[in-house]
Amino acid sequence: MTDFTATAARFCLPPGIIYLDGNSLGPLPVGAAARAQDVITREWGEQLIRAWNGADWIGLPRRVGDRIAALIGAPAGSVTTGDTLSIKVFQALAAALALRPDRRVVLSDTGNFPSDLYIAQGLVGALGRGLELRLVAPDQVAGAIDDTVAVTLLTQVDYRTGRLHDMAALTARAHAAGAVAIWDLAHSAGALPVDVTAAGADFAVGCTYKYLNGGPGAPAFLYLAERHVAVAEPILAGWMGHTAPFAFDLDYRPHGGIDRMRVGTPPVLALAVLDAALDAWDGVDMTDLRTASIGLSERFIAEVAARCPDLILASPRDPAARGSQVSFRHPQAYAIMQAMIARGVIGDFRAPDLIRFGFAPLYLSEDQIVAAAAILDAVMAGRLYDDPGYRQRARVT
Amino acid sequence: MTDFTATAARFCLPPGIIYLDGNSLGPLPVGAAARAQDVITREWGEQLIRAWNGADWIGLPRRVGDRIAALIGAPAGSVTTGDTLSIKVFQALAAALALRPDRRVVLSDTGNFPSDLYIAQGLVGALGRGLELRLVAPDQVAGAIDDTVAVTLLTQVDYRTGRLHDMAALTARAHAAGAVAIWDLAHSAGALPVDVTAAGADFAVGCTYKYLNGGPGAPAFLYLAERHVAVAEPILAGWMGHTAPFAFDLDYRPHGGIDRMRVGTPPVLALAVLDAALDAWDGVDMTDLRTASIGLSERFIAEVAARCPDLILASPRDPAARGSQVSFRHPQAYAIMQAMIARGVIGDFRAPDLIRFGFAPLYLSEDQIVAAAAILDAVMAGRLYDDPGYRQRARVT
Repeated sequence: MTDFTATAARFCLPPGIIYLDGNSLGPLPVGAAARAQDVITREWGEQLIRAWNGADWIGLPRRVGDRIAALIGAPAGSVTTGDTLSIKVFQALAAALALRPDRRVVLSDTGNFPSDLYIAQGLVGALGRGLELRLVAPDQVAGAIDDTVAVTLLTQVDYRTGRLHDMAALTARAHAAGAVAIWDLAHSAGALPVDVTAAGADFAVGCTYKYLNGGPGAPAFLYLAERHVAVAEPILAGWMGHTAPFAFDLDYRPHGGIDRMRVGTPPVLALAVLDAALDAWDGVDMTDLRTASIGLSERFIAEVAARCPDLILASPRDPAARGSQVSFRHPQAYAIMQAMIARGVIGDFRAPDLIRFGFAPLYLSEDQIVAAAAILDAVMAGRLYDDPGYRQRARVT
Repeated sequence: MTDFTATAARFCLPPGIIYLDGNSLGPLPVGAAARAQDVITREWGEQLIRAWNGADWIGLPRRVGDRIAALIGAPAGSVTTGDTLSIKVFQALAAALALRPDRRVVLSDTGNFPSDLYIAQGLVGALGRGLELRLVAPDQVAGAIDDTVAVTLLTQVDYRTGRLHDMAALTARAHAAGAVAIWDLAHSAGALPVDVTAAGADFAVGCTYKYLNGGPGAPAFLYLAERHVAVAEPILAGWMGHTAPFAFDLDYRPHGGIDRMRVGTPPVLALAVLDAALDAWDGVDMTDLRTASIGLSERFIAEVAARCPDLILASPRDPAARGSQVSFRHPQAYAIMQAMIARGVIGDFRAPDLIRFGFAPLYLSEDQIVAAAAILDAVMAGRLYDDPGYRQRARVT
């Protein structure tokens, strides 16, 4: 059984803060600063160019990818890291569309993170050939998968409500209809047990600055199912995806493995910090994590329901249908969240009317959850969010 | 007059090393490590999510872009930073092609860095519609620009030989033929005076880990001429390029300015380190830099010509036709460079037969150049590169 009272020591959290925004930016892991210093002063400063081989900078995307693979049910050698999630969505979608040249529809839902939809719009617009991004409501996705669909592009956990898609069921449905399934795990990786292999996902992508605590703008990851590795076409055909980058051939020949999804020179410093951040997962059982996460979110929902009748739960009431976050609706959501932050409880606001809280058992205790609910209660009961002076101050923050 | 005897103190260089590989990875600037620590421990660690506004993380791509703009003759607000150079080439080429929908040819040369060519191949292949990447020898470029050419995609300084394209002349020729000009400044920015405005470049891109000393895998930059800003189509339509990223609209509407070329969440740590690295340019006059760079490379060529008759100059003999690097050919180039590195002179090898040396006056003195030539002489005269024991050891490094 994972001891979550011990894992909090793996993070540097400022005193007096209850941090419920790890679903947006995870906190600083203890080893990250020292690792950055080592990479900067010893590897870069002293080894200089020699560190590409001497410190195996060149191997970082795969090494860090293997550690993420272990958290999402992927085999070693099936995940690469680098770039941003938007870029990885673009790569996955282009390669997926190339696998279904006779089909025209990219199916997604209105609960998907907008950047995924924007990237799809940009790609579909550039490729032309009658391609269409089709959006349906999240609960209409299963019914909308038919034999016109080339690719399903879905985020497992809704960034606003935490609503959880059934990855295995929707992937099976996509495959039955002859479509390719891409899963965005931005709010899943490190938040709940994920098994891309068991689910049969074709591609999976995600970011690492949320529950994986890799730091602001940390590199993204891309998983490619083994059955596609030899045929997936890299639209972003950068030199690091070449089978022999240092031969400097004039013609692109993709690497035979997952490295074909690498693009440019890897972001060494950020990858090293992410590598250090992943130490926080040593010995953590994801089933235990899920149990603890549900315990925290259920307790928070119960406390808020008992104390704050004006807040409407925007997340599924069934914990099995949620990721690791909970949102509430209120017309003054922005001001409420600002008032909470001013009182040391950091969650976030999502337009137009949501306050959102993430639950990361690695560093959060039930006592903190109860204390956060009490502060929310005080803000609501005292209408502290309605203080005009506060609103004025909030504008300049 | 810039005092280059003083600027060396702006870098941390290991004792006993003569570093002639800043054209591959610039050395560590003195402020970079402290800046990284501050971003990690204070901004990320203490401010957490609040640092996006509180520390203006969100503004980093533009702020750092403005500092690079000042080094390449671009106005403030015309350069953004992030991603990798390969990604920026892809964005620029896609947007440039969209400006010439009736033309089919992307013109480049065989001296261009392969990743630029690979990226063009990937994009051309994906877009179809009869597009073609046409390669000619570097000295044939001007003659090959005709009215079939949609885009010229050229790197100003050849990564192997240092051969310098005439940016203003080729851009004028491209425009006269109705083509759009993209310039890759990977080996130009921070290496010589560049004026994208005077040259009339439509797009310019570059990396920051060479002469700009941003660190391994540091973010890239993209310049967009003002006349294209309102119409350039972002094929990588990520949320950070949206006119209102935090409105979370379902539809992509590009930002009205250079920010439309942003893609995903910015790499905060790497951008902050790059920002610190750019302090090394305070008060540096680029014309003085060029004079000093030519002084160093001319001295090196003279010393090598006098001492090492077996080495064939692969770079233009006329310094006005070179960037800030010099290369020599030899069948045993790889072993020669390994022998030099073992003796404290770091340059690099480029397949199949080049040894390459970069000259960065910010931290290199003429004494070091003479000493480096003497070590090269010793390696050549003593045939130290032919030592079979050495070759065996080199293989495991």
